[in-house]
Amino acid sequence: MDSTPLFDAVAAPDEQAREDVFTRLAQADTVGAGLGRLGEVAGWVAACQGQVPPRPVTRARVVVFAGDHGIAARGVSLLDPGTSVVQAEQVREGAGAVNVLARAAGASIRMVDVSLDHEAWGDERVARSSGAVDVEDAMTAEQFDRALEIGRRIADQEVDGGADLLIPGDLGVGGTTVAATVLGAFTRTEPVAIVGPGVGMTDGMWKIKVSVIRDAMFRVRGLAAQPLEVLRMVSSPDFVALVGFIAQAAVRRTPLLLDGALVTTAAYVAERLAPGARDWFWAGQLTPEPAHLIALQALDLTPLIALDMTAGQGTGALAELPLVTSAVELVADELSSCG
Amino acid sequence: MDSTPLFDAVAAPDEQAREDVFTRLAQADTVGAGLGRLGEVAGWVAACQGQVPPRPVTRARVVVFAGDHGIAARGVSLLDPGTSVVQAEQVREGAGAVNVLARAAGASIRMVDVSLDHEAWGDERVARSSGAVDVEDAMTAEQFDRALEIGRRIADQEVDGGADLLIPGDLGVGGTTVAATVLGAFTRTEPVAIVGPGVGMTDGMWKIKVSVIRDAMFRVRGLAAQPLEVLRMVSSPDFVALVGFIAQAAVRRTPLLLDGALVTTAAYVAERLAPGARDWFWAGQLTPEPAHLIALQALDLTPLIALDMTAGQGTGALAELPLVTSAVELVADELSSCG
Repeated sequence: MDSTPLFDAVAAPDEQAREDVFTRLAQADTVGAGLGRLGEVAGWVAACQGQVPPRPVTRARVVVFAGDHGIAARGVSLLDPGTSVVQAEQVREGAGAVNVLARAAGASIRMVDVSLDHEAWGDERVARSSGAVDVEDAMTAEQFDRALEIGRRIADQEVDGGADLLIPGDLGVGGTTVAATVLGAFTRTEPVAIVGPGVGMTDGMWKIKVSVIRDAMFRVRGLAAQPLEVLRMVSSPDFVALVGFIAQAAVRRTPLLLDGALVTTAAYVAERLAPGARDWFWAGQLTPEPAHLIALQALDLTPLIALDMTAGQGTGALAELPLVTSAVELVADELSSCG
Repeated sequence: MDSTPLFDAVAAPDEQAREDVFTRLAQADTVGAGLGRLGEVAGWVAACQGQVPPRPVTRARVVVFAGDHGIAARGVSLLDPGTSVVQAEQVREGAGAVNVLARAAGASIRMVDVSLDHEAWGDERVARSSGAVDVEDAMTAEQFDRALEIGRRIADQEVDGGADLLIPGDLGVGGTTVAATVLGAFTRTEPVAIVGPGVGMTDGMWKIKVSVIRDAMFRVRGLAAQPLEVLRMVSSPDFVALVGFIAQAAVRRTPLLLDGALVTTAAYVAERLAPGARDWFWAGQLTPEPAHLIALQALDLTPLIALDMTAGQGTGALAELPLVTSAVELVADELSSCG
């Protein structure tokens, strides 16, 4: 963790292209003018591509960053910590919810095992699980550097490989506790305001989660000006890899569709480390998690849809992907046919 | 228009199937429990099919009912009355917005020329345009009967042909004025509360539209107990065909995904003529048209998404279709894998 800039400067999307889309749609017949928010999202894609009409999105890519979290042992989730590996195995085998949605939306999936608590599957490994952040550091400085570098490298690989839209996903029990800690520390939000009731979560579990987050936030009090140190102490390797991936994708001028609370918190951190990254983000469906809304508001993003989905792994972004791809196709069609 | 019941009784969907979906999803791992409103829509499809897990929706069919409206000559729309035929031609050629969205969502389209103002394309013809409803009847009793019969017959054809989800669409300048009149007459709502500003509509046009609707509503005052006569006097043949289509689809136990203000108003009338039909409806995306919300509230339906799309022709329902088909596939997958 040295002091040179972590990321190259983020270029701005082509605002003229966005304006052109809006102007030409407004001048179109009522069908073009009646596309509502689909016009907005197509304008964003055109701005990211620097091209009017925008090219169809045909190579959307989901990258799921998987990791276990020492904090899961506290009972902050309904799920047994061992569930992370089981779920990751499902996704690898093509049998997860994210696979179903990706197939339906025409996207492909890459699973990255950053820090699952098992024998490693691939080369992108940082650690076997992570420290319990209420009492100890999540990772060492070396692990932090490696996690960030893995995220950055995967973004480069995916962009070089031709991905035209990236969907970062998270997988791992305890991940939302880590994300809530980071978000609370950076936005100075009380844990009780960040932690939602969760699906099936008992009052007892909610209290444990809030108190764990409070303890972890206390460990990084006064470090708001040192975001990297905060991440090292209270996030997790998979979270850091997500941050690196998102920031580097923006550096590489590639649009990102953001899933729920955890990914959006990572995107918020990416914007801090690589200012301007947010212009390359579009928000996936809104979850009922308070942390999600807080992170979106901090990024000034508005989801197209709100389906109360909390399944994670990129599913909330994938549910929105057909709207994004259709919007681009519709607008390209309208703008071509009306000159 | 005789006094025998217009439609066979509408059977209720299988509520036990819906409950089974909800119960089994709640017992599933967090992915299944985290599907949010996608679980609701899958439960509705399961109830319509009477089957758990639900079968994938693979033969969704859009049926666009096209017609011109004498009232369009008053200047109630931004569009020249001749635009209806041009737009219908586009859809027939596969070049309309509805075609783009249908292709993306895997649905097929049928265009029915009920009363366009030109030489007829097909056999489902009732009239060349319709009466200007502020001063004259929209159609004769014979035309009314024929329009209703056409809608009913097409529903039968489509269900017999294997459609597993139907999306009724509307096409024709002045159609929303007709729908607003019908909705105002049946729900006793003031025209000013029904007519939205519309895309690009001037204040002058808005005033004309409101006053035309007021005049038409005045013509059917006191006829609230005679819905067929109201329809004959102030709707249009394409609207009546839509009503017949929607009611008969429900009679035939086929789920319907409803587009914007006009289709949803027709669905509201279908529920009056064939009580229980509403249980076979799901709401497509919410438009900013006040009439749309009024009709949805009367039917107690909540759209999954709100994109401010006002393009009509079924586009608002098609934008939502990928969510419906993915929801069914996801839930079927979850329920199969967890027993």
